[in-house]
Amino acid sequence: MSLISRNSALNELVRAHLTNLSARERLDPDALRNSIERGEMVLLGNPAHPGLSPILVGQPARVKVNANIGTSPLCSSPAEELTKLAVALAAGADTVMDLSIAGDLPAIRSKILAACPRPVGTVPLYAVAQKYIDRGEDPARFQAAELIEEIRLQAEQGVDFMTLHCGITRENAALAGADARCMGIVSRGGSILARWIRLNDRENPLLTHFAEVLEICRAHNVTISMGDGLRPGAGADAGDAAQWAEVIVISRLLRQARQAGVQCMVEGPGHVPLHLVQSQISAAKRLTHNAPLYVLGPLTIDSSPGYDHIAGAIGAALAVQAGVDFLCYLTPAEHLALPDAADVRQGIIASRIAAQAGEAALGRAWALEREQAMNRARFNLDWSAMREAAIDPEAVCERRKSFEQEEVCSMCGEFCAVKMARNQQWKADCPDNGNTGKDRE
Amino acid sequence: MSLISRNSALNELVRAHLTNLSARERLDPDALRNSIERGEMVLLGNPAHPGLSPILVGQPARVKVNANIGTSPLCSSPAEELTKLAVALAAGADTVMDLSIAGDLPAIRSKILAACPRPVGTVPLYAVAQKYIDRGEDPARFQAAELIEEIRLQAEQGVDFMTLHCGITRENAALAGADARCMGIVSRGGSILARWIRLNDRENPLLTHFAEVLEICRAHNVTISMGDGLRPGAGADAGDAAQWAEVIVISRLLRQARQAGVQCMVEGPGHVPLHLVQSQISAAKRLTHNAPLYVLGPLTIDSSPGYDHIAGAIGAALAVQAGVDFLCYLTPAEHLALPDAADVRQGIIASRIAAQAGEAALGRAWALEREQAMNRARFNLDWSAMREAAIDPEAVCERRKSFEQEEVCSMCGEFCAVKMARNQQWKADCPDNGNTGKDRE
Repeated sequence: MSLISRNSALNELVRAHLTNLSARERLDPDALRNSIERGEMVLLGNPAHPGLSPILVGQPARVKVNANIGTSPLCSSPAEELTKLAVALAAGADTVMDLSIAGDLPAIRSKILAACPRPVGTVPLYAVAQKYIDRGEDPARFQAAELIEEIRLQAEQGVDFMTLHCGITRENAALAGADARCMGIVSRGGSILARWIRLNDRENPLLTHFAEVLEICRAHNVTISMGDGLRPGAGADAGDAAQWAEVIVISRLLRQARQAGVQCMVEGPGHVPLHLVQSQISAAKRLTHNAPLYVLGPLTIDSSPGYDHIAGAIGAALAVQAGVDFLCYLTPAEHLALPDAADVRQGIIASRIAAQAGEAALGRAWALEREQAMNRARFNLDWSAMREAAIDPEAVCERRKSFEQEEVCSMCGEFCAVKMARNQQWKADCPDNGNTGKDRE
Repeated sequence: MSLISRNSALNELVRAHLTNLSARERLDPDALRNSIERGEMVLLGNPAHPGLSPILVGQPARVKVNANIGTSPLCSSPAEELTKLAVALAAGADTVMDLSIAGDLPAIRSKILAACPRPVGTVPLYAVAQKYIDRGEDPARFQAAELIEEIRLQAEQGVDFMTLHCGITRENAALAGADARCMGIVSRGGSILARWIRLNDRENPLLTHFAEVLEICRAHNVTISMGDGLRPGAGADAGDAAQWAEVIVISRLLRQARQAGVQCMVEGPGHVPLHLVQSQISAAKRLTHNAPLYVLGPLTIDSSPGYDHIAGAIGAALAVQAGVDFLCYLTPAEHLALPDAADVRQGIIASRIAAQAGEAALGRAWALEREQAMNRARFNLDWSAMREAAIDPEAVCERRKSFEQEEVCSMCGEFCAVKMARNQQWKADCPDNGNTGKDRE
């Protein structure tokens, strides 16, 4: 029996949306169905999410971009998070994750689900831990049943995908201590579970209750995003034993999930120096049976606070070229503060630039068409067509505001490279020709 | 006879500065001298540049970053360009190029030289062309002697390096027409010379007068930056016959220059899709006898106007890893407008991030030390040490302003990953421990 036929919610979703998705992704519907069957693509969509347009994640479908939003203890305003949601969607986010950790979490989640026509993800452990933190108690004191109940509640609420750190075990968590690594564990979910394991001297509850988790996820077509709770928090820790030991556990759980009719993605790093990006991505894809790989960054350096969207775009572009399917944005606020709406916008655009660079390198038709449209517009000095072809049309408008009547830009004026090279005669003699390479020198 | 002994200005510079430079670059002085002799490193410094600190360009010396500044016909204010100079230097620019094309060019150049203790570069052809453009005449009508005179004048004025598009020929320019490429020629210098060749039906004057040019450059230790006048202006044109045909000419000229005791760098692309960056860089380094390679970007996509500093950082990081020695910044204004001071700052920081990513990947000690310092600071939740280790300390200060008294940041508050994982006990029980991975999830 196949994955789709084991999951009636997914089966229904495939029936209702495959034709549209096939047109949107420009991929053959049979190929898409086969990829979903094999677990190499996932179709994100919980039937309980009102007004949702499901999306496909998994190359050669377009690389998708996620925005993390959500309240924090020091900046908790549900209204502001809804503004960030709107900004993220307008900038081109394909999904959002509600990572709220302060305020009335179920109410915030419900508002985000209602306002977001694209898939919404969460980390259910946060809600469980928050109850303890709010009472000043140790968040790692939660009961396994509470966590399972939270997963069920959020699945019923309509959450489309959930980060579940199923791959942390007693054994691999011990490899990630501050004695073995320069940064220890930096995943919030990972650190709570590692602490839970130590305090209780028992195995990861997501692992011991994995069958129950699968039952809930199948019933609502919740896609499990296998959290990388032991992902390195520094380039110097990248690719260490703890990281791979967790991926090996995830590799096994993935097969189990697929057999149970549950869709899965895999979360990847994290912090990865430039020279390790390609090998980490291809190794992770291989180990996890080509499941869709969802990366945070990867950040190629640690020393760029204030600009992690740039250091992350470097890693993300290479990662997409190496096979990554899904990018979680990094904003300029990463490592420093909760992002504001402007940061959210910058984060999405930077991730989309990385995806475009990676997909253009892979020769994807939609990526090359955008490049061609831009070049045609530039060659014709057609600013309105340049705006249309741009990843962020608003940025083009903003820059052109003060001299939008000019044919040329304020960098070169009439000293425009290709204009000169193309025209057989100078200026007024040949007013119908124009071009802007806009490069200096 | 060796390059250094043929160039008395260089010889003097080596004698005066090699010890200091060797300490600053943490490289053996004999190795440095040998690299300069072989032309694999250049020592930028014109004795006529007042107050100059010469710098070395060429890996394994640190990768250097250049900022382009200068007036344009639509935004011509020398005072503003001096502000940009100050901003560029404060942000960490190693060199600046004065690309002014409007106003009193010699006066602006003189002010920039006086205000800049780091090497200054120019494109002498701009000054020649500007005289014609100012009179409404065709800039390609200049006389060869005018160009040579301009080079001499700027060398006497103290310019440390000059972009000279010596590699364009009658033959290779014909390969770069709009019929062969989607963007034709996008280099301003390249387009004027290609036009000059066509109008005059004669060979590139920089080529026919190369011996004179070498004479001037040797006398003042002006380093020639071999301009890539035929560099592609679109990813689709990258790596075409015109591009390589020009590099082949440059390859020959380099040997001639070295034999004449003149230092040279080579300018590289430009627009290069991600999958071609590594091969283009290694091929260019090989063809040009490992001369220092100076790239603009490379821009991995064409569709990111408003964010070319990001698309450029992706290419630049890979390029540095592949052997590039010198990065010319791209600002968010590229392809749209003349950059303002804020753009200049963003451009320098983005290039420095790319250099850091590339150099960390290459295992350079200074790059790894910065990474280690940041990770130590993060592990200790030491915000002041994080600021110090950051590529842009100001960005850290700015983000921390509103909650600088807090030990934690506004993203996680007490929900701080490693803090939880490290503490054997919760919160108040264990106040001496703290850590911030700051990653979400």
